Amino acid sequence: MSRLILITGGARSGKSAFAQQLAESLPGPHTYVATSPVTDPEMAERVRKHRLARENHDWQTLEEPLDLAGTLARTEDCPTVLVDCLTLWINNLMYRATNNRQPLTEEDVEEHCRAVIGAAHQHPGTVIFVTGEVGLGIVPENREARLFRDLLGRCNQSLAAAARQVTLVACGLPLHLKQENTP
Amino acid sequence: MSRLILITGGARSGKSAFAQQLAESLPGPHTYVATSPVTDPEMAERVRKHRLARENHDWQTLEEPLDLAGTLARTEDCPTVLVDCLTLWINNLMYRATNNRQPLTEEDVEEHCRAVIGAAHQHPGTVIFVTGEVGLGIVPENREARLFRDLLGRCNQSLAAAARQVTLVACGLPLHLKQENTP
Amino acid sequence: MSRLILITGGARSGKSAFAQQLAESLPGPHTYVATSPVTDPEMAERVRKHRLARENHDWQTLEEPLDLAGTLARTEDCPTVLVDCLTLWINNLMYRATNNRQPLTEEDVEEHCRAVIGAAHQHPGTVIFVTGEVGLGIVPENREARLFRDLLGRCNQSLAAAARQVTLVACGLPLHLKQENTP
Repeated sequence: MSRLILITGGARSGKSAFAQQLAESLPGPHTYVATSPVTDPEMAERVRKHRLARENHDWQTLEEPLDLAGTLARTEDCPTVLVDCLTLWINNLMYRATNNRQPLTEEDVEEHCRAVIGAAHQHPGTVIFVTGEVGLGIVPENREARLFRDLLGRCNQSLAAAARQVTLVACGLPLHLKQENTP
Repeated sequence: MSRLILITGGARSGKSAFAQQLAESLPGPHTYVATSPVTDPEMAERVRKHRLARENHDWQTLEEPLDLAGTLARTEDCPTVLVDCLTLWINNLMYRATNNRQPLTEEDVEEHCRAVIGAAHQHPGTVIFVTGEVGLGIVPENREARLFRDLLGRCNQSLAAAARQVTLVACGLPLHLKQENTP
Repeated sequence: MSRLILITGGARSGKSAFAQQLAESLPGPHTYVATSPVTDPEMAERVRKHRLARENHDWQTLEEPLDLAGTLARTEDCPTVLVDCLTLWINNLMYRATNNRQPLTEEDVEEHCRAVIGAAHQHPGTVIFVTGEVGLGIVPENREARLFRDLLGRCNQSLAAAARQVTLVACGLPLHLKQENTP
């Protein structure tokens, strides 16, 4: 059974860099699963920088906006997988559901999370998920934004319950919320 | 003198569920003080779910949007009281004050908090308050929202200073900010 | 080489009061460096309250919205300097850059931070910086706000990497993210 690790934090907290360093401290080759469909120049620039930061290492990059469980099943020969990030994954699931006129519910998110957790537990290596904390501001006026933060919060709770390590990153520094030792 | 406990966290952080489990680990019967006036379907659905989660236990529910001090005085025969949540309480106080054309100030909030803390300290059992962290986003453009986050922050500081235990919940996991042992 | 301390937290988390108490526990005389240009009545009231809170102590106040490195160089005879806060400093740098039609970038922020860190390290005493966490809410719709939270996050990471102590304040209570002992 794999090690499942969850790294969370706010925007520009250093969570992705922390997760990447953690991954690079573990056996390679490494797989980076990017959940971002690149849709605007701001995003493209971020992706470019993230890619540069990895380029001197033995990383392969997969882009997968939706099917994380299937992607994890296809990376079982890779000892360390980094999924960056669940925030965009939930966003993508929400967007697809809305397009299908079937708004995503918390129950849907729990089901998607169960599949991802299952695939992560099947994985023989370490799977590190990066996610975001978006629930510590004022209640958003926008109904979609309120739904998004509820769905992401639910996702984070599910993953954290299944994870062996959960770390909140602030100012680039880790704060461990959960740390179970290997039996 | 009672034990006063403060549980804080962001939206969908698992703070209410954590507070409820903590309450259920303490002697019953339990009283749940709901500060939410149910004003819209989204809220009604949340209340319904919260109520379901409690229904197999010896909980009685009181709804009290404003007079928390008086409500605590009336529950002194109940060893464990859970007040969920201060976020809505401050919101309700603010709304009433605005209707009375006397906008709520930080000094008003401190006075209300003193009364609630006094009632909690008179209570012979354990009083657990759930609150929210709303100050870790961008400064809201809306003036009312800015005032609300200042008032709630003030309230949280007052309660935390008086509490024996203060716990921040993130991803469903507790991070203890304060933990005093019983003398 | 000075002690560099970073105190962070959300709005009304008690971070400034915590930083001030920390400063007052260290040798005086103390210098308070205010980065706020007082531009509106709401701000003026905050500044007035902060000033009142300091008035019984041996504080001198300097107002400096932009040149923190130069200001630190001019306070080397003062054993304890409190800079409150970096949130407004980044805001001021951003505003000036926009006025000059040269939008501030993360690279610019890193350069400004290097200068400030250099000045703080030259300082013979303790330099305490207060900053804010603004990245834990929903992605702001406003592009300027998105840029601001990225720039501030970058600034906080730079300062935290250089600091000997980094403390997150929530509900008025400290959570230490980093604490290095003096060699």
